[in-house]
Amino acid sequence: MQKKLTELAKLINGEIEGARDIVIKGIAGIKEAKKGDVSFIENDRYLPLLDSTSASAVIVSHKHKNKIDFSKGAISLIYAENSSFAFSQIASLFIPELPKPQGIHPAAVIGKNVAVGKNVAVQACAVIGDNVQIGAGTIIYSGVYIGQESCIDEDCLIYPNVSIRERTRIGCRVIIHSGAVIGSDGFGFFSARGSHRKISQLGIVEINDDVEIGANTTIDRARFNKTSIGKGTKIDNLVQIGHNVVIGKNVIIVAQTAIAGSVQVGDNVTIAGQVGIAGHISIGDNVVAAARSGITKSVPENTSVSGFPAKPHKHEMKIKACVQRLPKLFQKFKELEKKIEK
Amino acid sequence: MQKKLTELAKLINGEIEGARDIVIKGIAGIKEAKKGDVSFIENDRYLPLLDSTSASAVIVSHKHKNKIDFSKGAISLIYAENSSFAFSQIASLFIPELPKPQGIHPAAVIGKNVAVGKNVAVQACAVIGDNVQIGAGTIIYSGVYIGQESCIDEDCLIYPNVSIRERTRIGCRVIIHSGAVIGSDGFGFFSARGSHRKISQLGIVEINDDVEIGANTTIDRARFNKTSIGKGTKIDNLVQIGHNVVIGKNVIIVAQTAIAGSVQVGDNVTIAGQVGIAGHISIGDNVVAAARSGITKSVPENTSVSGFPAKPHKHEMKIKACVQRLPKLFQKFKELEKKIEK
Amino acid sequence: MQKKLTELAKLINGEIEGARDIVIKGIAGIKEAKKGDVSFIENDRYLPLLDSTSASAVIVSHKHKNKIDFSKGAISLIYAENSSFAFSQIASLFIPELPKPQGIHPAAVIGKNVAVGKNVAVQACAVIGDNVQIGAGTIIYSGVYIGQESCIDEDCLIYPNVSIRERTRIGCRVIIHSGAVIGSDGFGFFSARGSHRKISQLGIVEINDDVEIGANTTIDRARFNKTSIGKGTKIDNLVQIGHNVVIGKNVIIVAQTAIAGSVQVGDNVTIAGQVGIAGHISIGDNVVAAARSGITKSVPENTSVSGFPAKPHKHEMKIKACVQRLPKLFQKFKELEKKIEK
Repeated sequence: MQKKLTELAKLINGEIEGARDIVIKGIAGIKEAKKGDVSFIENDRYLPLLDSTSASAVIVSHKHKNKIDFSKGAISLIYAENSSFAFSQIASLFIPELPKPQGIHPAAVIGKNVAVGKNVAVQACAVIGDNVQIGAGTIIYSGVYIGQESCIDEDCLIYPNVSIRERTRIGCRVIIHSGAVIGSDGFGFFSARGSHRKISQLGIVEINDDVEIGANTTIDRARFNKTSIGKGTKIDNLVQIGHNVVIGKNVIIVAQTAIAGSVQVGDNVTIAGQVGIAGHISIGDNVVAAARSGITKSVPENTSVSGFPAKPHKHEMKIKACVQRLPKLFQKFKELEKKIEK
Repeated sequence: MQKKLTELAKLINGEIEGARDIVIKGIAGIKEAKKGDVSFIENDRYLPLLDSTSASAVIVSHKHKNKIDFSKGAISLIYAENSSFAFSQIASLFIPELPKPQGIHPAAVIGKNVAVGKNVAVQACAVIGDNVQIGAGTIIYSGVYIGQESCIDEDCLIYPNVSIRERTRIGCRVIIHSGAVIGSDGFGFFSARGSHRKISQLGIVEINDDVEIGANTTIDRARFNKTSIGKGTKIDNLVQIGHNVVIGKNVIIVAQTAIAGSVQVGDNVTIAGQVGIAGHISIGDNVVAAARSGITKSVPENTSVSGFPAKPHKHEMKIKACVQRLPKLFQKFKELEKKIEK
Repeated sequence: MQKKLTELAKLINGEIEGARDIVIKGIAGIKEAKKGDVSFIENDRYLPLLDSTSASAVIVSHKHKNKIDFSKGAISLIYAENSSFAFSQIASLFIPELPKPQGIHPAAVIGKNVAVGKNVAVQACAVIGDNVQIGAGTIIYSGVYIGQESCIDEDCLIYPNVSIRERTRIGCRVIIHSGAVIGSDGFGFFSARGSHRKISQLGIVEINDDVEIGANTTIDRARFNKTSIGKGTKIDNLVQIGHNVVIGKNVIIVAQTAIAGSVQVGDNVTIAGQVGIAGHISIGDNVVAAARSGITKSVPENTSVSGFPAKPHKHEMKIKACVQRLPKLFQKFKELEKKIEK
């Protein structure tokens, strides 16, 4: 496989600076690239690597223009609107996609009264319960379980060994990675005579369009009503979402975060990795929670928080800086005491 | 579906205050309820919502009686012993249960010499090893694996894609949610000539009656002897239980907690979310560990702990309060230094 | 089952001290052992239990020799090079292994052009995609999914319900525990007009020889190129490994740790439980990260770190000690202020 640089530039709607008449044979990261490869830079701090890379061409973004001293360059640059996305488009050319599953495998197990749209694929050993609806173009991989009366809309990808319990509602273009569990019972008990009795979890989970859910992530069904994930929200691996949580649109939730029951999360929120959010609180729109925040109280919109208990990020930074200087403070305090006692 | 309020009150053994002669058409949370709905309040702090809810009737607990100023109320109240449980009973009327799986599906794969009790259900693509015993009334969902010589007693629910390795012993009325793994090898190695060699994990996992285990939780088999979960203990999602851990009765373990190998946990312990417990220590009866505690030493019974390293909760609160005031302390210290230097 | 002590000593190449002519009927931990059992002690701090154990014989290591006051002993000791490993060898005698799966089950689903070595076993309801290669002696349990063009080399154990996505490369003697997900998409998006767009994850996962991967652990495929786990590395349960992470040889990663994208981890590193490592940084050879470390910057080789943000362990210990003494400092500071104001 080889492609002319000019062809690639055209594909990504980019402008070439430097030699135009070269041929590209592969793609690689900026550090690993060798002669004949095209690579890319997204983050400013990697721009100095333009001097040392062995790549033949590098895609950068228009915004980098003033930061590049091209006189040094022996390589070709391609300016694109978003270098990272442009590179992905080119990478797809060099790494051809494998064929997608097609049709309903004879070893798939389909319940009664299942409505299946056009071009749906169901792999072997997927099990689909009664009265399920699956929209056109959706692909169900092996080992997936879909419980009774669930609906999955069009063009979804449900990867192997996902478990989707009964009555779950899933929108269009939703991607659910392997091992994720949607609609397991919420964790609810009441105490009676010294033991814990189960509170029935009668609600559902609703996942809106364009959501992506990571591998082995768990989203519990509501006690009643619904646990809901808003349109365009992206959830990483091993995340726990408790019952009756309502998450807004375009939220990002990074790996190993846990959100306790009945939390409300606004739109465009970013929650970094290993965060914990206590039950029954609200996180406003556009909030950013730093990695490992432990959020114990509601957070107003447009706030950045960090620490445990989570506080406005600047305040937490001030406290953390003080903590670092504690050994010195203790020493100085001792000296001061001595001085005074004299 | 509609029900007379008097019928519902009778069902939950409750007393009506206010209009008795009304008809209920649905159930909802106190904030979402509309005319015709019955709702409930469990926590005192939501009692003020009685004035603003659109519900036609609200279930409260007897203990709330003195805290409600009912003269304001245009709604009917039902007093019950436990409002939350009473509401669940009513909710079950309005949300009819789906039919449970029945019988052994022809696409289930059953090993040799498997003993199956009355009314056992095994769904398609569940795989049951040789010499397994399954008690009456137990339901095994799709994609479940049960290894050789395991025993599962009566009336258990084993949800889709659970993996239960060989020789596991499970009591009655145990619920295991999707993706949980019971009996994976403990994490044990010894070093020899610069590499890690596996220590065989020859023991088992024993899960006693009335235990519930959350989605994608992992419980490792013992090195020898057994990892054991006591009667009535409830474990949330994505929890890790190491090899040879022994957990008592009626323990609550919230999501994403990790308990390292050979820990002993007493009865009636509560372990909140994202806690970590170091190996080979003991947690006494009735201990409460706050969310995100990192427990590094044994904890005596009847203690509340928090923080990392975990300490008695009151002591940790004192330290946390000091940490919050550090920026001020640093400033005051500077001022004091100046004063003295003058 | 019973064995002469002399036979057992021979098996583990050990020397008996005390009565030689006894018969062993079982194995047990030092605390649980009863008459007729053989037990072992690995850690010095358990040596005092030699006086109280009911075991008939106890295996200890040569290094314990000077620490044992054997005059007291009514039991037999066996000295071995590594008591823990020696005990495992004996334990295997008393707990006979169950038969391993054999052959390809008729309910396994095998794709086109799959190359299978000698003595490969594939259990029922495992699904293997087209163009997969499986080396001799490898066992694939039930519910496992192996995507197209993946290669698994010889003598691997792939436990039930593992999901291995397309193009994954797995070495020899690799063990993957139930529910683990290998090759799920990396968590990569770019923002365009207020929504998050997926960046294709075109790379692979490569797992080298002798790696062990815990239950429900997730390892994402690279954006391009590969996510790589080095030879002999052992990963516990519920660990998250992001895309393009490169992990060295003989690394230990304990449960619930998360490693963000593009991190480089050297050889012989030990990462304890619930650690978090931020993206795009390097962890040098032989680094030890204590439990719950939050590593935000690259760590030079041969360093021990702890805390969040992680620092050299000694420095962090000093700071932690200061934090513990804060309530006292605040009090003393108040007293000093008063003294001066007088």
